[in-house]
Formats: sequence, C-alpha cells, structure tokens
Amino acid sequence: MKVLALSGGVGGAKLALGLARVLPVDALTVVANTADDFEHLGFYIAPDLDTVMYTLAGINDSERGWGLAGESWQCLDALDRLGGERWFQLGDRDLATHILRSSLLREGLSLTEVTARLCDALQVAVTLLPMSDDPVRTLVDCEDGELPFQHYFVREQCRPAVRGFRFEGQQLARPQAQFMELLADPELGLVVICPSNPFVSVDPILGLPAVRDALASCAAPVYAVSPIVGDRALKGPAAKMMAELGLPVSAASVAAHYRGLVDTFVMDDSDATLAGTIDEPGMQVMTAPTVMKSLEDREQLARVLLSHAEDAKP
Amino acid sequence: MKVLALSGGVGGAKLALGLARVLPVDALTVVANTADDFEHLGFYIAPDLDTVMYTLAGINDSERGWGLAGESWQCLDALDRLGGERWFQLGDRDLATHILRSSLLREGLSLTEVTARLCDALQVAVTLLPMSDDPVRTLVDCEDGELPFQHYFVREQCRPAVRGFRFEGQQLARPQAQFMELLADPELGLVVICPSNPFVSVDPILGLPAVRDALASCAAPVYAVSPIVGDRALKGPAAKMMAELGLPVSAASVAAHYRGLVDTFVMDDSDATLAGTIDEPGMQVMTAPTVMKSLEDREQLARVLLSHAEDAKP
Repeated sequence: MKVLALSGGVGGAKLALGLARVLPVDALTVVANTADDFEHLGFYIAPDLDTVMYTLAGINDSERGWGLAGESWQCLDALDRLGGERWFQLGDRDLATHILRSSLLREGLSLTEVTARLCDALQVAVTLLPMSDDPVRTLVDCEDGELPFQHYFVREQCRPAVRGFRFEGQQLARPQAQFMELLADPELGLVVICPSNPFVSVDPILGLPAVRDALASCAAPVYAVSPIVGDRALKGPAAKMMAELGLPVSAASVAAHYRGLVDTFVMDDSDATLAGTIDEPGMQVMTAPTVMKSLEDREQLARVLLSHAEDAKP
Repeated sequence: MKVLALSGGVGGAKLALGLARVLPVDALTVVANTADDFEHLGFYIAPDLDTVMYTLAGINDSERGWGLAGESWQCLDALDRLGGERWFQLGDRDLATHILRSSLLREGLSLTEVTARLCDALQVAVTLLPMSDDPVRTLVDCEDGELPFQHYFVREQCRPAVRGFRFEGQQLARPQAQFMELLADPELGLVVICPSNPFVSVDPILGLPAVRDALASCAAPVYAVSPIVGDRALKGPAAKMMAELGLPVSAASVAAHYRGLVDTFVMDDSDATLAGTIDEPGMQVMTAPTVMKSLEDREQLARVLLSHAEDAKP
C-alpha cells in the first residue's frame, strides 16, 4: 500500500526513516513542512526538508539532533572573524546543500525539482516533497512582537513566550501537486502525521488550501503520532508553546488540536492511563512505543502503525 | 611619500606586502584588478582582491600560492557529492569571504565599501581598492572561441592558445574615485606596476577611462616590475600568452608593452645583460632582485624601488 507521511524536522524524520526502512522503496512519500524555510546570507535554507533528507540518507548527526554527521565549522568561524552573522549554524558540508539549492532555484528550478535532485545525489529513494513550491513563512507572535520562525527558534532559542502563529503566504500557496494527487489516489493506504510540532510543523501543511478537505475525503485512514509524551515534548518547543498558549501540556491537547481530521491518534505506551480520557468525535486512540531512540525503535513504530492500519481495513 | 601599487594576484601581492612592510601604515594604496571577478554558484568572487587582502593580512597560503593557509575543503567535497560544480576551488574559510561579500553587495554596498569592511575585519591597515566599482570582465580570445577568464584560467588551466583579450565593460567603468584622486595628488611619490600579468592583470586597470592620461600627468614616476625573468613567467600564464601572441618571451616584451607609460622599467638582476638592449623612448631601465621567495625578498625589492625613486627626485 502507498503511505504518505507529513513531517516537520527531527521527530518527524525519525518516523519517516522507520517507515522508509520497513516499506517497499516506492511505497512511501514524505511531505515536509517548508514554512520554516528562510533566506539567510543569500541562501535559501530549508531546515525541515534537509533534516528529513539527511536522515533518510543516513548522514544526519543523530547525537546533536540536527545537521550532518562529522560536520566541521571552518566557514562559520571564518565568517565570525569577518564580522558576519553566525547565529544560524552553517556547517561546512551543510553549506554545500544551501549553495546548490540556492543556485538551482535561481536558475529557475522549483523546490520540488531541486529536492529531487539533491535526494537523487544522496541516493534517497523515498519520494520527498516540499509541502508547496510557493513560499509560506511562519511568523511567531511573541510577547514583544512577531518574529520570523528561525529568529524565534534559533537566534532567540525559543525564549520569548508565544501567543500565536501566522503562516504568511499560506492561503496563496498551492499544495505540491504530487502530494495532492496522492491524497486522491485510491491506492493510498495510510496517512501518518509524524510526531512533529503540531503548531509550527504540521499546521503549515494542514492549512494549505484544500489540504484539510483532501485529507477528510481521502481513501486512507489518517493517523497522528503525539509528539508529547507525559508532560514533555520529545524534542523542541511544543510543550513550552502549549503552556504559553494556555493549553494543558499533554497528548490530550494534541488530540484536541487534530479534532475532526485524524482517525487514529497514537500516544505513547507510557501514557496508556490517559488514553481512556481522550474523547474526540470520530477519533480512535491507540498506544504504541513512540519514543524512538534507536533505529530499531523507528522501525518498530513504523511496523506497529502499518499493521494497525492493515488490520483496521474494512 | 605616498605610494600607489597596481596589482593583479599572487605576484603583485608579494610586492604589495613588501611595500606595506617598509612604508608607514598610511602611505600605501593598492589598487587591484577586478576584471577576473566572476559570479559562481551565486557568489561574487574577486580573486585578485582576495589574494592581495589575504597576503596583506598574512593569512594566505604561501606554499600553494593562492587561497588561505590551513584551508579545508569539506564544503567543496560535499558539493561534489551533490553533483555541483567543483572546478573552482572554494575552501571552507575562503567561502566566508565570498558569502559575506556577496551578501553585502546585495544589500547595496559598493565593492570598495565591502573591501574596506573585510580589510578592517582582517586588520589590514593598507588601503586596498578595487580598480572600479563597476563590472569589467576579461574575456580570453582562444583558438576555440572566447572564454570568461576564470574558465580559461582555472577550469581549462590555461590550456587553450590565446589570440587576444577583451575587457567587457571597461569603457563604461568608472575608475575607483580614491584611485583617481591619488593619481592627482601632488604628494604621490611613486606608482608601482607590480610584477603581475601585463595582459590580464594590469591592462584591465590601465585601460579604464582616463587612467593612462592620469598616469602620464601624475606627479610621481611610474615604475613597472617585469613579471618575466629570463624566458619564464615567475607565476601564471604570462610567458605562455606571450609566445601564443607571437611576442618574444622576455622582459623586453614587457617593456615594449608598457611603452609610453612607464618611466622606469625594473628587470631582474639575472637579466642584466638584456638591460642594455631595451630602448623604449622615455623609459629608464634598472635591475633589481625581483624574484621574491622570502619575506625579506619582498621587503628588499620594496626598499630598492623606494630608494631609487627617492634618489631620482629632482
């Protein structure tokens, strides 16, 4: 069966890798958030696409949690000496991706085409798509005003309290064509919303024109894996954001966030006692080992989701 | 006294460094050729400005002859793996210069302003100026057609035989303002044409509108140091070009090239027997130790030129 995964960065990439390893090579399509993308020092930088791509290529730095394994920082150090901006960590090898992508985009290739070319060079066989070839930019509404996402996330290290989010360009952006075709494909057997940040990684994708309707009417069940386990986010600022938005920090808030959209909500086994308290209309709840530390964990979660979806077939 | 040096890359930078080390800090202005500049992978790259700047900063790789000492190549290797162009050697540290310069130029700063900013960060006290803030591009007329300079020089490694040169944009380019002011300055005591390639490093500067006239009418004597010693160029394709252009490969051809422009032609001590045969109207000939291997050699040549010019004062 065909499987579609919607992903942000690190957490989503882990599950995307698990799915890639247990599915036939042409079965999986990963759609990555591009609302984190930004222009920096003349480069077009696509952090979530890169994280997923590097993870699928097996060249990511799994200890640091982002970027490339064995990375060096000679350029960034030299840039610092020259008085340039160094708040965004540009590794020497990672830079090659930004240089080539920016160069190809300037030549007129679409982000989809550039992504395919980079994946091809890195021997990533899975289809990785940007959510859109049109620009969408996340702006974080903070106590002291609105910040572009990477300024909030990297430069300010998520310190400012958030009050909301705005996705500039989202209503004018066309969802990537293959993404929409797959949602209309009768052979689509499963949609997985990866354990990514619901507010800044998944909402930019879900809010693209026609995506919610396409998800509601697609042939496949929609699963969402909670990025919140207990009262913590496995990675990133999701829990902090929830608290600042006045929501209880728990998987239940994630379930509520996906109300009306998700058929099966997947929370961690350790939250089993909470499972019975979640009562969203039309939403089933299941538990699974969602904390992915090892490669085996990633494959195991992928297998659990796939077999659950297979068993649930009418 | 104020001194102006006109320079291309490596050979010129050596003498510029010698002059910088023996002159008071504010006495020297170096004007570098920018007709080798080019756009590559989205970067504005200025090879001669960088070579002079790195040399004056003492951070150049003197063994390799170009680029930065202690350079690494992680980005270029990664770019190669991604299928990007790797014919132009972009070191990781050097990249920082290209990134920052390109970024500042896009922000609207002039090449002069960007050069000053980079020199300031690298604690280069000498005034280093691009010959012009306007684009001039050397095109090499080769047997198989015209090649942009860096394609000829780096990608094709000077293999094609040359028939001539064209400096696109030269007649529309305004010579850098401080450069022209200095040529009109009564305190200017010496102009040195460094031992750079006469065809592709010096001619782009000399052919800018009004530069020849300004040199002819300036208060200072104009010295030119031959980049040809014996029948060889100390560095680069000058000798090969001469042969292909049908000129005898010797310092005499360089002297003839600078006819009517240079007051004192400086050839290497080892060419002393040739000195008497050079008979260009209005051109004196002197010999000096022009082969600069050590730092002391650079300083010595600078001292010889300065004291000769001092002695020759009316």
